[in-house]
Amino acid sequence: MTTQQLRIGFIGLGKMGSGMCANLQAAGYALTVYNRTKSKTQPFAEKGAKVADSVKALVEQSDVIFTSLLDDKSVLAMCDGDEGILAAMRPGKIHVGLTTIQPTTADVLKQQHAAQGCHYIAAPVVGRPDAAAAGKLITFLAGDASAIAQVKPLTQAYAVKQIVLGETASAANALKICVNYMAMAQLAMLGEVFTYAEKSGLPKAMVLNVASMFFAGNEPMQEYANKIAEREFDTVGFDLSAGLKDALIFETAFIASGVKPSAIMGAKDNLVAANANGLGSKDWSALTQMTRLMAGLKD
Amino acid sequence: MTTQQLRIGFIGLGKMGSGMCANLQAAGYALTVYNRTKSKTQPFAEKGAKVADSVKALVEQSDVIFTSLLDDKSVLAMCDGDEGILAAMRPGKIHVGLTTIQPTTADVLKQQHAAQGCHYIAAPVVGRPDAAAAGKLITFLAGDASAIAQVKPLTQAYAVKQIVLGETASAANALKICVNYMAMAQLAMLGEVFTYAEKSGLPKAMVLNVASMFFAGNEPMQEYANKIAEREFDTVGFDLSAGLKDALIFETAFIASGVKPSAIMGAKDNLVAANANGLGSKDWSALTQMTRLMAGLKD
Amino acid sequence: MTTQQLRIGFIGLGKMGSGMCANLQAAGYALTVYNRTKSKTQPFAEKGAKVADSVKALVEQSDVIFTSLLDDKSVLAMCDGDEGILAAMRPGKIHVGLTTIQPTTADVLKQQHAAQGCHYIAAPVVGRPDAAAAGKLITFLAGDASAIAQVKPLTQAYAVKQIVLGETASAANALKICVNYMAMAQLAMLGEVFTYAEKSGLPKAMVLNVASMFFAGNEPMQEYANKIAEREFDTVGFDLSAGLKDALIFETAFIASGVKPSAIMGAKDNLVAANANGLGSKDWSALTQMTRLMAGLKD
Amino acid sequence: MTTQQLRIGFIGLGKMGSGMCANLQAAGYALTVYNRTKSKTQPFAEKGAKVADSVKALVEQSDVIFTSLLDDKSVLAMCDGDEGILAAMRPGKIHVGLTTIQPTTADVLKQQHAAQGCHYIAAPVVGRPDAAAAGKLITFLAGDASAIAQVKPLTQAYAVKQIVLGETASAANALKICVNYMAMAQLAMLGEVFTYAEKSGLPKAMVLNVASMFFAGNEPMQEYANKIAEREFDTVGFDLSAGLKDALIFETAFIASGVKPSAIMGAKDNLVAANANGLGSKDWSALTQMTRLMAGLKD
Repeated sequence: MTTQQLRIGFIGLGKMGSGMCANLQAAGYALTVYNRTKSKTQPFAEKGAKVADSVKALVEQSDVIFTSLLDDKSVLAMCDGDEGILAAMRPGKIHVGLTTIQPTTADVLKQQHAAQGCHYIAAPVVGRPDAAAAGKLITFLAGDASAIAQVKPLTQAYAVKQIVLGETASAANALKICVNYMAMAQLAMLGEVFTYAEKSGLPKAMVLNVASMFFAGNEPMQEYANKIAEREFDTVGFDLSAGLKDALIFETAFIASGVKPSAIMGAKDNLVAANANGLGSKDWSALTQMTRLMAGLKD
Repeated sequence: MTTQQLRIGFIGLGKMGSGMCANLQAAGYALTVYNRTKSKTQPFAEKGAKVADSVKALVEQSDVIFTSLLDDKSVLAMCDGDEGILAAMRPGKIHVGLTTIQPTTADVLKQQHAAQGCHYIAAPVVGRPDAAAAGKLITFLAGDASAIAQVKPLTQAYAVKQIVLGETASAANALKICVNYMAMAQLAMLGEVFTYAEKSGLPKAMVLNVASMFFAGNEPMQEYANKIAEREFDTVGFDLSAGLKDALIFETAFIASGVKPSAIMGAKDNLVAANANGLGSKDWSALTQMTRLMAGLKD
Repeated sequence: MTTQQLRIGFIGLGKMGSGMCANLQAAGYALTVYNRTKSKTQPFAEKGAKVADSVKALVEQSDVIFTSLLDDKSVLAMCDGDEGILAAMRPGKIHVGLTTIQPTTADVLKQQHAAQGCHYIAAPVVGRPDAAAAGKLITFLAGDASAIAQVKPLTQAYAVKQIVLGETASAANALKICVNYMAMAQLAMLGEVFTYAEKSGLPKAMVLNVASMFFAGNEPMQEYANKIAEREFDTVGFDLSAGLKDALIFETAFIASGVKPSAIMGAKDNLVAANANGLGSKDWSALTQMTRLMAGLKD
Repeated sequence: MTTQQLRIGFIGLGKMGSGMCANLQAAGYALTVYNRTKSKTQPFAEKGAKVADSVKALVEQSDVIFTSLLDDKSVLAMCDGDEGILAAMRPGKIHVGLTTIQPTTADVLKQQHAAQGCHYIAAPVVGRPDAAAAGKLITFLAGDASAIAQVKPLTQAYAVKQIVLGETASAANALKICVNYMAMAQLAMLGEVFTYAEKSGLPKAMVLNVASMFFAGNEPMQEYANKIAEREFDTVGFDLSAGLKDALIFETAFIASGVKPSAIMGAKDNLVAANANGLGSKDWSALTQMTRLMAGLKD
């Protein structure tokens, strides 16, 4: 069976999922979709996708099943039970897990799928919804080598870069956590640097200047430096309440491996406080506002 | 008087100072040097520099006086008293302060010099001793515009980039603090990410791979990521006890402006601990070893 | 029905539960017990308790059902499903929840029980297993007033003090979190103070002396000060891995209410590190060892 | 010479100093006073004290010289130079240092005095200005044993408890730091607990109740729990800007001995923020307001 002949199932049409799914559809794959809120399947149906009435039905009609869900709990619930993914999986089918989950959960999922003679590929992605829509994500892939060989061409529909990490599923999710951890640490740091500059009477343009040298080839971080400098938190790439959820994921993973996550503690404290101060729907870089509030800047 | 005719005095021939001074000498300026430990003036004398017996004598023979000292206390002490810099300064002379000091101290120095009819230019530099020796530093310049106009061509001897920040002397030192703050926050973050990867069984090459994307275009940070991945802390660009001193400078400056420096707290804790564990003379990125020790990794 | 006529069911015979249950039995109440590992019911059966084969059977035979379980998840699982507590509850029956759970979970449980016409009383206890065995716990009680009136005399079997907090179930669990939060913050603090004293050459007896003034009427804290001074971590009142679990409970509760839990961050970091360093089965005050390790004290 | 015949000199009539000095005068000792702002000597002169025109004059007329100053810098400056304390000290005279200074500074002072054949006794006190005025402080004493024997009866004028720590001067200051460190850690902790209770709808009276059990026998901490519960920060025992100064003293001492001061980090962050928010003149327990602000409570 060639890649083009693979029947694709896609579960979870949220902000990230809908972008990736649209790119898979645009690439010409036969597509079946499922979403708890059925109305979100409409745009895909209009372009020719089948809409499954149940998870089970979707799995039965698909060779490769992508899931883009909220968290560990929702992925595990989607796999379990008589009506779940695992019950309908057959040898040869591949489940591609896009959700950011705990690394240990990825290993559990791989094992559960293997017990059914099928495959679980950990395939978390790096990038925000706009990158998902533009097909410009980065994806990490870990799991059975032959299954990855089948799946990798599909991921080119939504990812410009594929990094294959070997057989251990958790590795892909662990690396995803490393990337987001690096990014989140920057937000609190930049918020503090710009607040210090402001309180010191140092023009923000000068700080932006050095931030641009610092993040010369890292466009997303340059954008965040701009947002924080301008305090432009209403254009939302990734919202603050999602940022707090992410922080808790990192923390759980670090603690499970016995490493204390100091570098994001300032970020996490500010995400908690920003949520408590009603900023949950702003861009997550709005955590900066809490550094400013503590520094006596009230606007 | 053309730039080439300016008589230059240089006080403080430590790791950073000797590199900058050598580049000024190589650029052909008439040079007088002074150092508390006189033996360090020898290499400059051999290439034709005058060696002053006192600070006062040096100032009297120079139009532009550079100081590269340890900290606020040593700069203030060097300026004060009957035998100090200020007592010997005359209208038109310019004092170029290269030392990393508190921004508020820079403003005090500017005022003291102005009261004598002369100039203080805050001129802290970014870069390690190897960059000083190679003439590849970045310098920030703040103070009287006409004095900066005279001094700026001189700084080209040791700096590839000059950023002029206006009349307020403290701005140059505040920006220097911003830059180093950004860098220091990364070290603790990288140490935690690599330790997490190690404990999770994730190959360090993969983390290096994403770190390289993250810090694309930022060569020094890429080097630090390498050092931390390889735990190669014996090649010392900037030692750990100097790193702790730096952390305390940032913290004092942030607290003075009412901003809490969360982003470097992990770094600072680890610098304190690493010093207590006998790593003071290693590269400052060896703070990583403390994250590893806490995570149960003893080697 | 008088208090003495109430038929008592007790689920969960772990370290805390077995002590409380033994005191209820010693007070003369008719008792049915259930435990997943059946062997733990043996001592109670020998003294005349009935042993239920299922949760459902226990609930059917009891007027007041005590549960002493591990965490939110285990309590919710024990209540749910066809074989769970809720399915067997009838109007008038009272479920007394002893487990330390999230306050929000207590409110959910109260509501679920009310929907069945029965009662959930939040009844977390303060004290370690030795206090449970000695009947010297403190208990907080929250829920329906008439149900509390029935339950309160029973709690005298294991608690020397009853604090009634009104109708809102979560209040009892929130107050329990406050108490443990206060205690945990002290452990990290005492560990740091004694380590500082040791590194400063200050005799520990002097620090113990002032700690005794500080905690004059707080015997448990005085004991902890002693343990930390002597580094006597093998007599275990509450083990370190349980301490880490507790820290995560506090943190979840604080974050849910938008308050950052700074005061226990040092404790939590050290609990994580101590677990990673193989101290999970020591007394939780052994987190002190991590402060010492970071300070360069290796014994 | 009997204790009553000792001529006492007292330098530094601030909030703490004036209370202690008044008690020494009330106890009947021959007294000479000196204060930079001379008006503060007036009340003492009115009751018969001599007022010295210079430090030197005071030392010449006294057998035992008490100093109650601001910090290390002011103590060292007061001792140094031709007009300083050391220049006027003669064998047999005793300098009693009441100021909270770095332990290492106390050892330096002891050595400097010994070099002149006289004594320095480290004698920091625990308690607020009201306790100084009431003669109810606690004092730690360290230094030469025979000098302590002479000085100890004098300290009974202002202290209800004397704890002698041996010959090493720094020990007294280190122990003082331990005590204040313990107290400061509580303030941030209590502020967080009461804020959590407030956000959780838990009545503050209940939290006060358990706080009273926790700090049974520790009156000052019970008072602070009350202040924080009532947010009554206008009655000022020790102001917030002094609290921040204290935090920095602890931190410097801990870092100098290689111990990281995690337990007061929350307190310090809040002290910095509270100062930045204009609360510097409130009671230091007002740091609680910052925990509330971050939690979205604006009053």
